[in-house]
Amino acid sequence: MADKLWQKDYSLDQRIADFTVGRDRELDLELAPFDILGSLAHVTMLEEVGLIDSAAARRCQAKLRELYLTANNGEFVIEDGVEDVHSQVELLLTRELGDDGKKIHSGRSRNDQVLVDLRLYFRYRIQGIVEQTAELSRTLTDLSEEHRYKLIPGYTHLQVAMVSSFGLWFGAYGEALIDDLRLWLAAYDTVDQNPLGSAAGYGSSFPLDRDRTTELLGFREPVVNVVAAQMGRGKTELTVAFAIAGLAQTLGKMAMDVCLYSSQNFGFLQLPDDLTTGSSIMPHKKNPDVFELLRGRCNLLQSLPAQISQLTTNLPSGYHRDFQLLKEAIFPALDQLEDGLAIALYALPRTRVHAQELPTDPRYTYLYSVEAVNNLVLEGVPFRDAYQRVGKDIEAGTFVPPTDLKHTHLGSLGNPGNERIAAKREAVMASFDFERGRRAAEALL
Amino acid sequence: MADKLWQKDYSLDQRIADFTVGRDRELDLELAPFDILGSLAHVTMLEEVGLIDSAAARRCQAKLRELYLTANNGEFVIEDGVEDVHSQVELLLTRELGDDGKKIHSGRSRNDQVLVDLRLYFRYRIQGIVEQTAELSRTLTDLSEEHRYKLIPGYTHLQVAMVSSFGLWFGAYGEALIDDLRLWLAAYDTVDQNPLGSAAGYGSSFPLDRDRTTELLGFREPVVNVVAAQMGRGKTELTVAFAIAGLAQTLGKMAMDVCLYSSQNFGFLQLPDDLTTGSSIMPHKKNPDVFELLRGRCNLLQSLPAQISQLTTNLPSGYHRDFQLLKEAIFPALDQLEDGLAIALYALPRTRVHAQELPTDPRYTYLYSVEAVNNLVLEGVPFRDAYQRVGKDIEAGTFVPPTDLKHTHLGSLGNPGNERIAAKREAVMASFDFERGRRAAEALL
Amino acid sequence: MADKLWQKDYSLDQRIADFTVGRDRELDLELAPFDILGSLAHVTMLEEVGLIDSAAARRCQAKLRELYLTANNGEFVIEDGVEDVHSQVELLLTRELGDDGKKIHSGRSRNDQVLVDLRLYFRYRIQGIVEQTAELSRTLTDLSEEHRYKLIPGYTHLQVAMVSSFGLWFGAYGEALIDDLRLWLAAYDTVDQNPLGSAAGYGSSFPLDRDRTTELLGFREPVVNVVAAQMGRGKTELTVAFAIAGLAQTLGKMAMDVCLYSSQNFGFLQLPDDLTTGSSIMPHKKNPDVFELLRGRCNLLQSLPAQISQLTTNLPSGYHRDFQLLKEAIFPALDQLEDGLAIALYALPRTRVHAQELPTDPRYTYLYSVEAVNNLVLEGVPFRDAYQRVGKDIEAGTFVPPTDLKHTHLGSLGNPGNERIAAKREAVMASFDFERGRRAAEALL
Amino acid sequence: MADKLWQKDYSLDQRIADFTVGRDRELDLELAPFDILGSLAHVTMLEEVGLIDSAAARRCQAKLRELYLTANNGEFVIEDGVEDVHSQVELLLTRELGDDGKKIHSGRSRNDQVLVDLRLYFRYRIQGIVEQTAELSRTLTDLSEEHRYKLIPGYTHLQVAMVSSFGLWFGAYGEALIDDLRLWLAAYDTVDQNPLGSAAGYGSSFPLDRDRTTELLGFREPVVNVVAAQMGRGKTELTVAFAIAGLAQTLGKMAMDVCLYSSQNFGFLQLPDDLTTGSSIMPHKKNPDVFELLRGRCNLLQSLPAQISQLTTNLPSGYHRDFQLLKEAIFPALDQLEDGLAIALYALPRTRVHAQELPTDPRYTYLYSVEAVNNLVLEGVPFRDAYQRVGKDIEAGTFVPPTDLKHTHLGSLGNPGNERIAAKREAVMASFDFERGRRAAEALL
Repeated sequence: MADKLWQKDYSLDQRIADFTVGRDRELDLELAPFDILGSLAHVTMLEEVGLIDSAAARRCQAKLRELYLTANNGEFVIEDGVEDVHSQVELLLTRELGDDGKKIHSGRSRNDQVLVDLRLYFRYRIQGIVEQTAELSRTLTDLSEEHRYKLIPGYTHLQVAMVSSFGLWFGAYGEALIDDLRLWLAAYDTVDQNPLGSAAGYGSSFPLDRDRTTELLGFREPVVNVVAAQMGRGKTELTVAFAIAGLAQTLGKMAMDVCLYSSQNFGFLQLPDDLTTGSSIMPHKKNPDVFELLRGRCNLLQSLPAQISQLTTNLPSGYHRDFQLLKEAIFPALDQLEDGLAIALYALPRTRVHAQELPTDPRYTYLYSVEAVNNLVLEGVPFRDAYQRVGKDIEAGTFVPPTDLKHTHLGSLGNPGNERIAAKREAVMASFDFERGRRAAEALL
Repeated sequence: MADKLWQKDYSLDQRIADFTVGRDRELDLELAPFDILGSLAHVTMLEEVGLIDSAAARRCQAKLRELYLTANNGEFVIEDGVEDVHSQVELLLTRELGDDGKKIHSGRSRNDQVLVDLRLYFRYRIQGIVEQTAELSRTLTDLSEEHRYKLIPGYTHLQVAMVSSFGLWFGAYGEALIDDLRLWLAAYDTVDQNPLGSAAGYGSSFPLDRDRTTELLGFREPVVNVVAAQMGRGKTELTVAFAIAGLAQTLGKMAMDVCLYSSQNFGFLQLPDDLTTGSSIMPHKKNPDVFELLRGRCNLLQSLPAQISQLTTNLPSGYHRDFQLLKEAIFPALDQLEDGLAIALYALPRTRVHAQELPTDPRYTYLYSVEAVNNLVLEGVPFRDAYQRVGKDIEAGTFVPPTDLKHTHLGSLGNPGNERIAAKREAVMASFDFERGRRAAEALL
Repeated sequence: MADKLWQKDYSLDQRIADFTVGRDRELDLELAPFDILGSLAHVTMLEEVGLIDSAAARRCQAKLRELYLTANNGEFVIEDGVEDVHSQVELLLTRELGDDGKKIHSGRSRNDQVLVDLRLYFRYRIQGIVEQTAELSRTLTDLSEEHRYKLIPGYTHLQVAMVSSFGLWFGAYGEALIDDLRLWLAAYDTVDQNPLGSAAGYGSSFPLDRDRTTELLGFREPVVNVVAAQMGRGKTELTVAFAIAGLAQTLGKMAMDVCLYSSQNFGFLQLPDDLTTGSSIMPHKKNPDVFELLRGRCNLLQSLPAQISQLTTNLPSGYHRDFQLLKEAIFPALDQLEDGLAIALYALPRTRVHAQELPTDPRYTYLYSVEAVNNLVLEGVPFRDAYQRVGKDIEAGTFVPPTDLKHTHLGSLGNPGNERIAAKREAVMASFDFERGRRAAEALL
Repeated sequence: MADKLWQKDYSLDQRIADFTVGRDRELDLELAPFDILGSLAHVTMLEEVGLIDSAAARRCQAKLRELYLTANNGEFVIEDGVEDVHSQVELLLTRELGDDGKKIHSGRSRNDQVLVDLRLYFRYRIQGIVEQTAELSRTLTDLSEEHRYKLIPGYTHLQVAMVSSFGLWFGAYGEALIDDLRLWLAAYDTVDQNPLGSAAGYGSSFPLDRDRTTELLGFREPVVNVVAAQMGRGKTELTVAFAIAGLAQTLGKMAMDVCLYSSQNFGFLQLPDDLTTGSSIMPHKKNPDVFELLRGRCNLLQSLPAQISQLTTNLPSGYHRDFQLLKEAIFPALDQLEDGLAIALYALPRTRVHAQELPTDPRYTYLYSVEAVNNLVLEGVPFRDAYQRVGKDIEAGTFVPPTDLKHTHLGSLGNPGNERIAAKREAVMASFDFERGRRAAEALL
């Protein structure tokens, strides 16, 4: 049948080359500006310790700054036949500067070059995701305030249980995101250490000043031990993957709620038309595809740690080429998470909420049974007696739900505590030191 | 710093559209010939049951056969603004045939259309992988015969244990692959059932003849229950993922052995130069990158079932848009596995094997301790006494390894049993019925 | 605070011993009868090839048959200080038979002994699970017939989509289980091969007759290559884990449906009281705990392949002690799956189903929109016009659902095709050859 | 065959009960002291806000303090027929105090009771693991100093690459563990928030003082939103699982190195005899079983996040019974990790290290090629020329390795920087506030 379509008629050499390079050339474009920053710091240090003369250093720096602008404009290109971003930068330097361009490789290897690139890149991406996450948390807290008094059933075991509200529902996700930020903080603090100078994982006989490159790149401190620096490959990605998976768990759960609550059997939420799709055969359908895809995407992202563990497990210490594949696991994940955050930020404020007529809807009457019991308890009836009395009313069909709710304690229906949540969020955000890296990059450029 | 590079300046509408469509347009190109085959079968049946007149059916069939050729030549294009392959085929039909082109959608939905596409596609891909796997198994059996008498140490706990050989090592992987084929058989038999006619998962009031489309598409039998047909989404992919992961486990383990045995500390294998890479700072390096990447790739593939389980878990019955993401998990996996098989097929016969001087290498002397014990036992010494006597010789440094090995039983050093393995392999291969589908497609075209 | 409670005051030696033995002594009890069967076959073969004299063989066989009865009565005990089942059987033999008892270890190692035990054990467990799965499939088909005409909404995207029925819902799971059986067949056929004679993974210089032990133990054929036999460790478990995970996916999805459909917002299913639990504070609650636990259990089981892949990945060929941990991953999983099947078999026939008043419930009116479109099409209106006309009626609130449904095609509402599903199920069941092993064990005992 | 052994002859009722209770009664014993602490805080607060009279409060407190001592001595028992720890404590209170004992359940549910128990329990376990991890890091840094000048080959791609040392190898793991502590900090900070007062996840109409119980239990702050408190179930465990998996990755990699380096093909490490095991058939074997089991255990632990994600994914907000299974996933994992740390702490200082004769061992000669190149560069030869000159010497067999190594930069062979690593470790340790919880518990008791 469709043989020709799939037949690979290119040569085996090409196939091996493709297998080896993989998606590197494409993914490395994302690393270009960071690779250039790393080279700028390295050449500056080399000059300071006397391993390269000032004139050569200045020429390299000037060219690298020029390349940075190109990269930052998205115009950096990895030419055909060039394997990766490091080779391309080297090629551009030597094409113009000749031997001077080669000098920046003293005391450095591809291994620590890509380690630096990745840590600078992750630092950058983490900042973006953290700021978006905090923004989504703020949005959810705002929605909690806005819909504070709109009641919905609260479920346990997917059974109607007690009265809840949109105030509680939105606010809960707003607060849950703060705990996700704690994992991002661990990832950021892990990433924010300088591996430059570890060369191929065993250091160098050149008298490198690793504290100086740490300062130039705005890292908090060096990864001290050079073998540890190399071991960070895989481990750094795993930590970032944990943060991704944790945040995805929260977003995915919220998306599940949205899909369920948009069902006609709940009817709590109604997505705006630009976020629903129709059906080719059912003229009445308005499907929550965007939230289904957000849910599915987040669930896939939750499997990222397993992928990275599986890829790196039982590799002895030292570099292995397997690590190259980490990039294709984690780079798209960062994009997908950012897309998911952006869509949640867009969609949630545009979603219509439908408060439910809880006491009068026969499906929801029993939501008030705990209130009825508690009211009796506050009147002095022992809990067990109250529980039994209400139970009997329910069985006899004579249960009348009490309609005045007085939930006053912190975090409850009547007191969602959003200002406390805001304070908690801002305290965590204050733990991130995004400024050091930004200032250092500015100084280098 | 690098803000501009990453800033997404396109509109939010576009972003939502991109998020929703995802990689569908790209991945759907692989489905095009199968989508067209499905439509050919459907329209043929529709005419036979009187739901479409003969003239319209013939015009549709002619156009579909034309499109099939285009698709099979790799020239099928999904136009800008068209969401997926189904829409593109529909567009091309109606553009030329007008209302006649629309008629083929009676009694069908996007849901069962993609179900058919996927099962035809998987059937096709499975055949390719199964044939390559069998070929690799044959190659390994041949290498086992070729290197039958070349000895290497056999390890347990990574400690030298007993004498082994390249004959055993190659032959073992040749046999292990046969068990992998059993999982592919389960996947093939699961896939080879016709979901067409299940529409959106709840069937249709049209009098469709599902047995007829089953025959036309060369499926073994229909998925009978329409809800079951829809539930096959996710479940089919999971079964294929199991087969992928099982095969990847074997290939990955072999790649680990190759990398380890290529180390200077073993020195058993030497890869050809076109399969090794050098180092930018170490002039002596010949690294086994291709096998490291094969290993890493296979390890990632082993995490595929977890991804699919994670994506589909706790989704109630019925279609969900989350399922769209299955394609981007499993389509590239099939390509990667095929690439891995191709590279193993290329590389292994070109790899030089270095038989080891076992009795004289002090690292390997003790490999022969079991032989020494067994020789004593065969001379009538009780096992425990023999074991102790040899143990004492080893401690005293007086152990002399016996150099004549007489392993004769089935599957051992002297009798690897490759002809038995070949018979086993061909018996499993005979269980696959690839012909039915091929003949049916020929008849339709 | 609670220091003392957790403080481990036992000696470090004991701690290392405990860490090394792990749960082996407990789990090995399950292997006892199979270990004894393996020894019976081995000693019988040893006598036949002249490696042990007839008198010693007969004494060993008699004692082993006695131990088998003990094991089969659940009275086999691993004594304190004895590491595993193999040592215990050896101890009991030598305690009574002296040197004769030791002779059965010629040409055998712990490694192939446990390989045999595991394959016999898995063969036994697979049979139990397969038979229960077939029984559950039959039960579901029966329930499909019983509730054939009771309508419920069918959902896509969790939105009401088209009319469905309990007949379709039960029947779908009945058919889905058949595909799960295909994976169990792959697992069974993989397991049903004899590793005995592979010794420590490199065979033996004794003239073992591996075909004879294959016959005595009722294996289909030997694992030929001795290195392949050892490589089966981990790989066999992975294949069984795939079968477990596949079946768990079906059961877990069904459990999710049951939990959702038991919610007041659906009200389709009502579990019997002995399968629900109450709440300590809400007097009205009847929670579907049993199905929630079935769901959760099945979801954990779906992660089993990832656990086994993670444990075995990148271990070079040859035995590693890591493999011991496979038992504690997979043995409880088999029990849990069997419990889940038993509970589904008990619960589903006792669950009350509530057909829904589809046309009159305002939540469900639009279920009939496709029928309305199709009716117009059958009257000659082009599909697109029909679709638009019904769409306008829906928007105008004038849509009247057609109440007569005529779904007649195979697998649809009116024709669930349960007899076809039954035939499919029995065909797959006929592929399992459970008899050979049973007969062989009888002959040995 | 072995039917009777496996046949479950107990009643189905019992089977359902067992399925529902699962391992709860056993696992809950670990929660007993924490459950009692939670009750002490709750009853104290209830009295302060006037929901229980002082006499009743005092009687409850006295009894609870008594029970705490029992629990802390490991003598707490869950009686037959009692479902879990909460019921047992309640039973003991009411058995002695009658109605007074029941009063402590005002404004509380099993749901928030177990949430509190788990957070107190995790806080306690995290402290233990963190302190052991820091201790292992210190031990490794000490070993790095001790073996600072003992050289071994450094590998990339498992190929000999550059000179390394035991100083670097031990030190690397010492530093890597510090990054693992960052994840534990995220877990601790997530755990260290008070869920009490969230009741069944929707709060209570009683005027609870949640800030007061927060203070009494020594939590940093409350989980504010009551729905968020309930959503912490699963999420908290996932975060702890990330920390477990991260640490397991480091320990597992180290164990892989130890196993590899103990192989005769490396010979770098020699484990003490009490950490090796022999073979039943090979008299020469000393197998590193303890490190293989540590490796395998750590690899299984790395799959813990996948298990928890799989279990919780797509569960809508609100409690589900599935969460009960979290305990059996995560409680044993904490024990296993602690055992692994203890064994590493014991074994590593007792392991003999064998420095390698690098320049004279022909396998290792080329380790010095980078040094040779660098020496030429420092003499003024351009890098590319130096690289080619050394490359030619290697090919011609005339390469003479330079024997004087001058690695001086931070973290390199000659300057492992262990004091910097120590400072980094203690800085992270100072971020944990273990004291607050301890002081609060003391005050309550």
